[in-house]
Amino acid sequence: MLIRAGYQIRYEADTPTPMMAMLSIHPSRHKGLVTPHRIVATPDVPMYDYVDAYGNVCSRVTVPAGGLTLTSDFTVEDSGLPDTLTPEAVQHPVEDLPDDVLIFLLGSRYCETDRLGDTAWSRFGHAPAGWARVQAIVDFTHEHVEFGYHYARPTKTAWDTHQERQGVCRDFAHLAITLCRCMNIPARYCTGYLGDIGIAPVDAPMDFSAWFEVYLGGAWHTFDARHNRPRIGRILMARGRDATDTALTTTFGAAQLTGFDVHTDEVLALD
Amino acid sequence: MLIRAGYQIRYEADTPTPMMAMLSIHPSRHKGLVTPHRIVATPDVPMYDYVDAYGNVCSRVTVPAGGLTLTSDFTVEDSGLPDTLTPEAVQHPVEDLPDDVLIFLLGSRYCETDRLGDTAWSRFGHAPAGWARVQAIVDFTHEHVEFGYHYARPTKTAWDTHQERQGVCRDFAHLAITLCRCMNIPARYCTGYLGDIGIAPVDAPMDFSAWFEVYLGGAWHTFDARHNRPRIGRILMARGRDATDTALTTTFGAAQLTGFDVHTDEVLALD
Amino acid sequence: MLIRAGYQIRYEADTPTPMMAMLSIHPSRHKGLVTPHRIVATPDVPMYDYVDAYGNVCSRVTVPAGGLTLTSDFTVEDSGLPDTLTPEAVQHPVEDLPDDVLIFLLGSRYCETDRLGDTAWSRFGHAPAGWARVQAIVDFTHEHVEFGYHYARPTKTAWDTHQERQGVCRDFAHLAITLCRCMNIPARYCTGYLGDIGIAPVDAPMDFSAWFEVYLGGAWHTFDARHNRPRIGRILMARGRDATDTALTTTFGAAQLTGFDVHTDEVLALD
Amino acid sequence: MLIRAGYQIRYEADTPTPMMAMLSIHPSRHKGLVTPHRIVATPDVPMYDYVDAYGNVCSRVTVPAGGLTLTSDFTVEDSGLPDTLTPEAVQHPVEDLPDDVLIFLLGSRYCETDRLGDTAWSRFGHAPAGWARVQAIVDFTHEHVEFGYHYARPTKTAWDTHQERQGVCRDFAHLAITLCRCMNIPARYCTGYLGDIGIAPVDAPMDFSAWFEVYLGGAWHTFDARHNRPRIGRILMARGRDATDTALTTTFGAAQLTGFDVHTDEVLALD
Repeated sequence: MLIRAGYQIRYEADTPTPMMAMLSIHPSRHKGLVTPHRIVATPDVPMYDYVDAYGNVCSRVTVPAGGLTLTSDFTVEDSGLPDTLTPEAVQHPVEDLPDDVLIFLLGSRYCETDRLGDTAWSRFGHAPAGWARVQAIVDFTHEHVEFGYHYARPTKTAWDTHQERQGVCRDFAHLAITLCRCMNIPARYCTGYLGDIGIAPVDAPMDFSAWFEVYLGGAWHTFDARHNRPRIGRILMARGRDATDTALTTTFGAAQLTGFDVHTDEVLALD
Repeated sequence: MLIRAGYQIRYEADTPTPMMAMLSIHPSRHKGLVTPHRIVATPDVPMYDYVDAYGNVCSRVTVPAGGLTLTSDFTVEDSGLPDTLTPEAVQHPVEDLPDDVLIFLLGSRYCETDRLGDTAWSRFGHAPAGWARVQAIVDFTHEHVEFGYHYARPTKTAWDTHQERQGVCRDFAHLAITLCRCMNIPARYCTGYLGDIGIAPVDAPMDFSAWFEVYLGGAWHTFDARHNRPRIGRILMARGRDATDTALTTTFGAAQLTGFDVHTDEVLALD
Repeated sequence: MLIRAGYQIRYEADTPTPMMAMLSIHPSRHKGLVTPHRIVATPDVPMYDYVDAYGNVCSRVTVPAGGLTLTSDFTVEDSGLPDTLTPEAVQHPVEDLPDDVLIFLLGSRYCETDRLGDTAWSRFGHAPAGWARVQAIVDFTHEHVEFGYHYARPTKTAWDTHQERQGVCRDFAHLAITLCRCMNIPARYCTGYLGDIGIAPVDAPMDFSAWFEVYLGGAWHTFDARHNRPRIGRILMARGRDATDTALTTTFGAAQLTGFDVHTDEVLALD
Repeated sequence: MLIRAGYQIRYEADTPTPMMAMLSIHPSRHKGLVTPHRIVATPDVPMYDYVDAYGNVCSRVTVPAGGLTLTSDFTVEDSGLPDTLTPEAVQHPVEDLPDDVLIFLLGSRYCETDRLGDTAWSRFGHAPAGWARVQAIVDFTHEHVEFGYHYARPTKTAWDTHQERQGVCRDFAHLAITLCRCMNIPARYCTGYLGDIGIAPVDAPMDFSAWFEVYLGGAWHTFDARHNRPRIGRILMARGRDATDTALTTTFGAAQLTGFDVHTDEVLALD
């Protein structure tokens, strides 16, 4: 399957405002590109990329006084298959985890493992270890939290979401990630494109989405506590410990997001 | 100057408990060693080191049922000079910062930049940029927070410390780091040995200490919001975004710290 | 199976001579340790480890005037199985290779891909791609080159070995690696312990051994052009582009190797 | 000073041919860009970047049947100053060198330290250590080797250049690098733009250039054995152990370079 995706994003600023943007696709998707991925800046200000400590492509650019529009439009191959289920994937004892995975057991800005440990162990301590335990966490999170765009708040953490029982996809992910880490299951935050391929068309403006991955059976596996069912066509953009590390844009100053349009669709063959 | 330092730490556990320990000195101090740095485990269980994403040496070991004692004793060269003051070090505009420094502007578990931004800008927005602004933040933190060992709490964040006005060296560091980051000054958390060389002997059991570094004028500089004066003989063990990344030990299970003895002293020549 | 291995190595020097040693086991074997891996220096001079760009543990030490003995003795778990054969592993088109694998297609000090390309294509261009092509290269190398300890020479390259048809395990590896790279099959040099487990006892002093790995079917696979048959009990110490990157010791000055004893044996259970 | 630079390069191929290209500027020059650096492919085939182990930007692309043109044109700030001379920069004893610098003491494909060690020590063992020793090596190389474009040969090594006494800028660099490494001075190969700013206009087609850097006094310093005098306007593209690691393009198949045009000039202000 081919998926065509991209965005047009607009920032206004009164004075030049530096920005760090994670608006590229993740390097793991590079090989599937059938048209180049390119970020076009209007006006054509200097912009360059670097790779951060998590392997994400980050772009540095300064929003000029007068504002900046960033646009991308690309086509990439996709398996066309829904998220893989691997219920036999075992949970590793901590001592067997690879060294570089351990960081995804620790707390982070929006994932207070130190505050949710007791909750996690009392709820999931009796669930079978491994995939079933993660699924129990995802089921719980999906049920416990009510989705609503107006529940979004930049400072909202997993603890807040657990208490308030309201949130957006990012909050679902943070809560489920935190509960997994409390149970010694490494979990990391993912952000990217997720369209409505294979499901009923969604009557809402497209946005980027957040999900997460857990480390079981020697590999990372995708879970989505917001939707809690396998989906087709995720295009990963960035991964990290939580939303702090993967913000689509981080501005250092007073730039305002004033336009935002995302698209991601299956490319249908013409006959 | 030569400094002799080390520790004896004891953990008890009823069942084997995996542990990640940052009980080595930082690689930046390797060249000054005049005796090897070695962690001796009793009993002699397997233990191995890896280097984490921040460049710290981490040791993996499992506390056996019956407990584990870790001991180290080494001698290292030191300049013998107090922390360097560099008041002329300029603050870089964000767009001039190196790519790998940007992560130290972001929030982290104990440093809620998103919650303290307004406080920071209202207090320090008029201070001269650069070294003077950092010193103003350190002065404020040192004055604002009352030190007391009994104020320590594992979940305490910079926000909590700002509200409660009580804490230990870790809390002083987290608050000052957060305020620096809010002002677009990269700041990172440090932990290590700090004895009483050059000051009146301290009548309290030795502990490891926490301080922080800021990036000004193209280099990292040491600040210490707890003591707020230049000190001699810091021996760095680990650096990171905050105390999450640099915990001396992280146990995955129910091991209890039951013994803790740290020493760090100038080696005085005999004549 | 448990394997007990180690060494005692002695260097003499008239003046202090810095040394870089790769005398640890590779981090991929850390989890199997049942006793710690530790290098003991006599006299007990300072020594510290770092991890190089290939992921190997390197130790830095200075051989003092009067000489230095390095000793290690450890026990590690092993599958007890011979090298895995995976004849179905496919050869990837170059454009499908992961980014970090490409470096193992390039030439290096002892692997002159630019000089052996024509030879490689004329000999192996008609062999089926993938595993069979690598096996053809290994068969050729094994037949083409005569083994003999006295054929060792520090400057000997793959080209030299191809011309002279004589060499030691390192030369067999360099030639086979070079031919694989010429055929666009990524190949890297390995060094480590290899005893006589599962074969007739070898009547020669134990030494470290050299073999290589190729990237096929999304994974690295072990080949050994010197022995050309599956062996039990390889314990990897270091990997790199060729022997330059994995020398057991590199001295910067006039230290002389004067003692060398290596052991690696299956630990047999007593009943 | 502003420098405008870029290229147009053409490859022909009968069948699709994968290529790895180092045709970007080095990340250390990113901040000076005043127009974006962008590689335009004609036709507009997919192409993506990664960062290699030496910190260089590498682009992966497949030359389609019918050929490919790669074009770039950008403007970057430059100090406008000639290469800095730092004669007081000291030579570090090997034991004081940073860990990640040691690799630049080892041999590599075109730098046979094992073959040129005796030559180096007999010629330069009596030169004062540090900057003067490097300058003596550069002076010797500059005198010893005759420049001529027709002396270029892909397999030519430092040893070959020393024997044949003929070469191009790459060969001058390889020989000087090898001699420095033999003397325990870390040296690495550099490639990039070098125009005729500040010198008499050169009556020859512009090409990319090769130079090298040595590690003295805690920093890397530029030397150029081909020109042996300070030059203005070097724009670094890639660094590595030698030309193997920094080839502007490496093709895996039968693509032919059929067009090559490079430009780099000072941007002169109009009044």
